[in-house]
Amino acid sequence: MEKLIERIIALKNPTVVGLDPTLAYIPEFIRENAYGKDGKTAKGAAKACLEFNKKIIDAVCDIVPAVKPQCAYYEWMGPQGVKCLKRTIVYAKKKGMYVIVDGKRNDIGSTMQAYAAAWLGELDVEGEKCTPFDGDALTVNGYLGTDGIRPLLELMDADQGIFVLVKTSNPSSGELQDQALADGRKVYEAMGAMCEQWGAESIGKYGYSNVGAVVGATYPAQLEELRGKLPHTFFLVPGYGAQGGGAKDVAPAFDKRGLGAIVNSSRAILTAWKKENNPEDFAGAARREALRMREDITKEIASIG
Amino acid sequence: MEKLIERIIALKNPTVVGLDPTLAYIPEFIRENAYGKDGKTAKGAAKACLEFNKKIIDAVCDIVPAVKPQCAYYEWMGPQGVKCLKRTIVYAKKKGMYVIVDGKRNDIGSTMQAYAAAWLGELDVEGEKCTPFDGDALTVNGYLGTDGIRPLLELMDADQGIFVLVKTSNPSSGELQDQALADGRKVYEAMGAMCEQWGAESIGKYGYSNVGAVVGATYPAQLEELRGKLPHTFFLVPGYGAQGGGAKDVAPAFDKRGLGAIVNSSRAILTAWKKENNPEDFAGAARREALRMREDITKEIASIG
Repeated sequence: MEKLIERIIALKNPTVVGLDPTLAYIPEFIRENAYGKDGKTAKGAAKACLEFNKKIIDAVCDIVPAVKPQCAYYEWMGPQGVKCLKRTIVYAKKKGMYVIVDGKRNDIGSTMQAYAAAWLGELDVEGEKCTPFDGDALTVNGYLGTDGIRPLLELMDADQGIFVLVKTSNPSSGELQDQALADGRKVYEAMGAMCEQWGAESIGKYGYSNVGAVVGATYPAQLEELRGKLPHTFFLVPGYGAQGGGAKDVAPAFDKRGLGAIVNSSRAILTAWKKENNPEDFAGAARREALRMREDITKEIASIG
Repeated sequence: MEKLIERIIALKNPTVVGLDPTLAYIPEFIRENAYGKDGKTAKGAAKACLEFNKKIIDAVCDIVPAVKPQCAYYEWMGPQGVKCLKRTIVYAKKKGMYVIVDGKRNDIGSTMQAYAAAWLGELDVEGEKCTPFDGDALTVNGYLGTDGIRPLLELMDADQGIFVLVKTSNPSSGELQDQALADGRKVYEAMGAMCEQWGAESIGKYGYSNVGAVVGATYPAQLEELRGKLPHTFFLVPGYGAQGGGAKDVAPAFDKRGLGAIVNSSRAILTAWKKENNPEDFAGAARREALRMREDITKEIASIG
């Protein structure tokens, strides 16, 4: 998690741009140009998304510390989309950005080893090594307990991280996550406590471990409660903007140094050009929205660093 | 789920072959041949896996109703691996097999729509449609509640299905899943009850809905308990064989018609050639092990159909 925190401090910006490039978010001139000889196919769509992502990355890489590509929107385009995902990751890293792969992966131990290697590690083909996706961080689902997390702990270096789903931003998150346990805690609190436990051996110089938690902006009371209970757990906060969370809602996720959380925005940044009615300058519009978001959030939290 | 159940009845075989093709499972002659001009790269590895998968599928498609490719082992080979996954799915379906994609996907509603389309549906590129992966069924994680399941329910036809993680086969599954809730139930029971609820409107002619559950062979008492409590929920049962579950352990997952569950085996089938010390006939060895497994399980359950 160190590298992420350092970039947040350097840019004085605790936000991440979610790269969820559905075709409806991409200006027509990019799409038409991308379809070219491949036509309106998965390959054409993936080309449009890659072109769009690169321009968004170019527009924000000097002001935003991280991007968060959401696997679903790439898998949706089949293998061509997954290739686009890898190229997006490689491009963002080349531009100095920290890449949080939003895959919410989860499985039993032996299988989780494969996921860990896929997203944060290496493939070893009989001695020859390559990096399958080369992410910096990965979102994961902890329903399977420690077995499904340990392979990640064993593989990560200090700069890498995972974010475990604790209290998600969606309306129905409470159906399971808010269930009261016999010991008085809620399910999400039990999951949060596991994050602290899993991270106990990787607490770095900023006081946070490389096991973070996903806690939604749409549940500010839980954000505040969990910030207090999970002092070494860095938060990835979705739900700001389009889902309804505001700057005041996310403020409780931060500590007294303005650290402890990174807030995601996808739609509002990717589609800022629609509000400006300005498809040609979609990248400029994204940058303006990213700056507005930084301003919006930083005015509600302690000075960063 | 109908198509799966019909194939189980037709072949009198309630088992599924897990296609988790790590390189160590693949005989050397296949690997060496596949590396060819691509060398020991992700592409070479993916070629070896595809060749291996095809031969396994050829060897079992007339006796086993379904295959279950585990996404992790393909993502591990990067975009080339994901292409191999798609080709494996297409090949297995062409051979008449039902394909359960083991991706344990999960996300908020809008994102889950993309996953649903990716794995069970279509990509619509401005009116031109294609099938990204074309699975018959998908494993999912229900930690996010109904929002993360509804897009799948809306998309599936009667032949398709999802399997929600309820009680997983790994040693630490109880850390969260066995926690007692204030209302007296365990977390896995609450998740199981949600499966019944999610499936309530899709109960088909065999009495099962298209919302199934993953329940591990390594927890036979919970299998029996859940079979009783979830009468309309079809079970996908991992953990037989290498993980320690035996035929007597999985028997309680079945109803009085020998239906209600499908038992997975990956390693024991894919590496059967090692026991026989017979790499050249790895496919024959897989078939013999698949027949042995069918015999082993069917002798413990009611006659199928």
